[in-house]
Amino acid sequence: MDGAGEDRPANAARHPEPRIEWFNVPLMRDLEIVERPAQQTTLTKRYTQEAREIIRENKDRPFFLYLAYAFPHIPLFASEDFLGKSRRGLYGDVVEELDWSVGQLLDTLSEEGLADNTLVFFTSDNGPWTVMEEMGGSAGLLRGGKGSTWEGGMRVPGIAWWPGTIPGGEVRRDLACTMDLYTTAISLAGGSVPEDREVDGIDMTPMLKGEGPGNRGEYYYYRGTQLYAARIGPHKAHFVERDGYGRSEPAVFDPPEVYHLGVDPGEQYALEEPPTEVMAELEERVEKHRSSIAPVESQLEKKIEE
Amino acid sequence: MDGAGEDRPANAARHPEPRIEWFNVPLMRDLEIVERPAQQTTLTKRYTQEAREIIRENKDRPFFLYLAYAFPHIPLFASEDFLGKSRRGLYGDVVEELDWSVGQLLDTLSEEGLADNTLVFFTSDNGPWTVMEEMGGSAGLLRGGKGSTWEGGMRVPGIAWWPGTIPGGEVRRDLACTMDLYTTAISLAGGSVPEDREVDGIDMTPMLKGEGPGNRGEYYYYRGTQLYAARIGPHKAHFVERDGYGRSEPAVFDPPEVYHLGVDPGEQYALEEPPTEVMAELEERVEKHRSSIAPVESQLEKKIEE
Repeated sequence: MDGAGEDRPANAARHPEPRIEWFNVPLMRDLEIVERPAQQTTLTKRYTQEAREIIRENKDRPFFLYLAYAFPHIPLFASEDFLGKSRRGLYGDVVEELDWSVGQLLDTLSEEGLADNTLVFFTSDNGPWTVMEEMGGSAGLLRGGKGSTWEGGMRVPGIAWWPGTIPGGEVRRDLACTMDLYTTAISLAGGSVPEDREVDGIDMTPMLKGEGPGNRGEYYYYRGTQLYAARIGPHKAHFVERDGYGRSEPAVFDPPEVYHLGVDPGEQYALEEPPTEVMAELEERVEKHRSSIAPVESQLEKKIEE
Repeated sequence: MDGAGEDRPANAARHPEPRIEWFNVPLMRDLEIVERPAQQTTLTKRYTQEAREIIRENKDRPFFLYLAYAFPHIPLFASEDFLGKSRRGLYGDVVEELDWSVGQLLDTLSEEGLADNTLVFFTSDNGPWTVMEEMGGSAGLLRGGKGSTWEGGMRVPGIAWWPGTIPGGEVRRDLACTMDLYTTAISLAGGSVPEDREVDGIDMTPMLKGEGPGNRGEYYYYRGTQLYAARIGPHKAHFVERDGYGRSEPAVFDPPEVYHLGVDPGEQYALEEPPTEVMAELEERVEKHRSSIAPVESQLEKKIEE
């Protein structure tokens, strides 16, 4: 019994005009269900309001706020104030409400006198879910989407705000990833990362402040536990490729397909003859990376067993 | 005898590392050849220098300057100052030199006290030539390229500069096209367009000044003399489609394929059931447009015969 109703369409057909009763999702506070089905049209605003309260309640001490809006993951819902406001349909309306929400949070930080000692970092977890068509977003010129290790699946916005410390209106072309947020946050808080394990994050602080280039010279693209691709500087090598979720068999490339992401960010034109020094460095770094991997206990399975 | 040399590769293979001697093009002043082959590495800078002189020589009277840089059309050449400067290879270097050049022209206008009574409009003639791969540019999220009537072939940047008259740093989402430049320029100069013929341009002035919305509610997409597609507001109907130059047979759609460019600017998802009122208006407007077309003498053929 999931309360979805008999008229619920299957899969993707639900999403152009979603109804709350088709998605019997719970809204939880800690481990307690407080609402079911969640009234999703007001979810963005309620998250924003809750975040503003957390900022105000903690303004006199250091705090770390991780705010993960549910949207623009499908099913998409916007409040009445934003429905029909954009030219990009429901997806655009949802994004406008998120944009408004971020503005509310920045205003709150400024009102509380916290703007000059708070780093705000805005990012996303993956590219568009392309099988959901225009309800799933767009990767622009980038190839592929969510579930693939093409840039369209992996590259996300990264916007940093810290008036007086991070210069405004500038674009850094350096490589960074969400794993770097952990290391950066610890660095800014004056701590140090654990030394009893391999930590993949790199401190972004000098790059964010404009004091120097980013220190991430490489990036490894995984699907699950399998290495699909590796990037060294502007060169990206694909060992395995899948366009996204749903395709059953991956394509394997040996030798790898190599693209120059500076000249060809859309990964349209594999290099016919990748430079030998690039291939040598790639092999060396990938081997080093692989040897640094140690399987760890699944934190999710551990939680479920508790 | 075209002086191209025996080692000139065929077609697209010339363009990743072009040499001046492979392209025996003349540089002309009016109808006189002044240099052959044109020393293309300095072409952008020389056009810029010439344009600056024209501005200075005409600063005391009204003038109209049409400056059509040869690049980023292939073959691509940049001066030594810009070679290797960008992260986007030769194409990026060429664009950086064009960007620098435009800056030189804006500086010249400001230095000569002309900034507040000069409209500068920056645009292009078509989208990327995709068969030239990364040497041909990119249409970003738009579908298709040069030679097609998908948005990737037809949509171009349109940047207007006129300090004190056109508000800076704003984005207008209105429809406009290069045919509108003629009508706008005449309007700004206090003239009126000829009334003895059909003129397709629309005066952009109110839209540019931020005084009101654009007045172009429709646009017709041609390849040669054939109507391939029509846009009414956000809806675009394709009657005929070709991905670009080189494909021999066009695909014909009857009924037309209709896309909503607001929700789906990438033209990925044709509407299953276009709104009947949209289809009715489309039919009416296209018929009116077709009836307004009168064949005229080819100006190019006339010139050649002279």
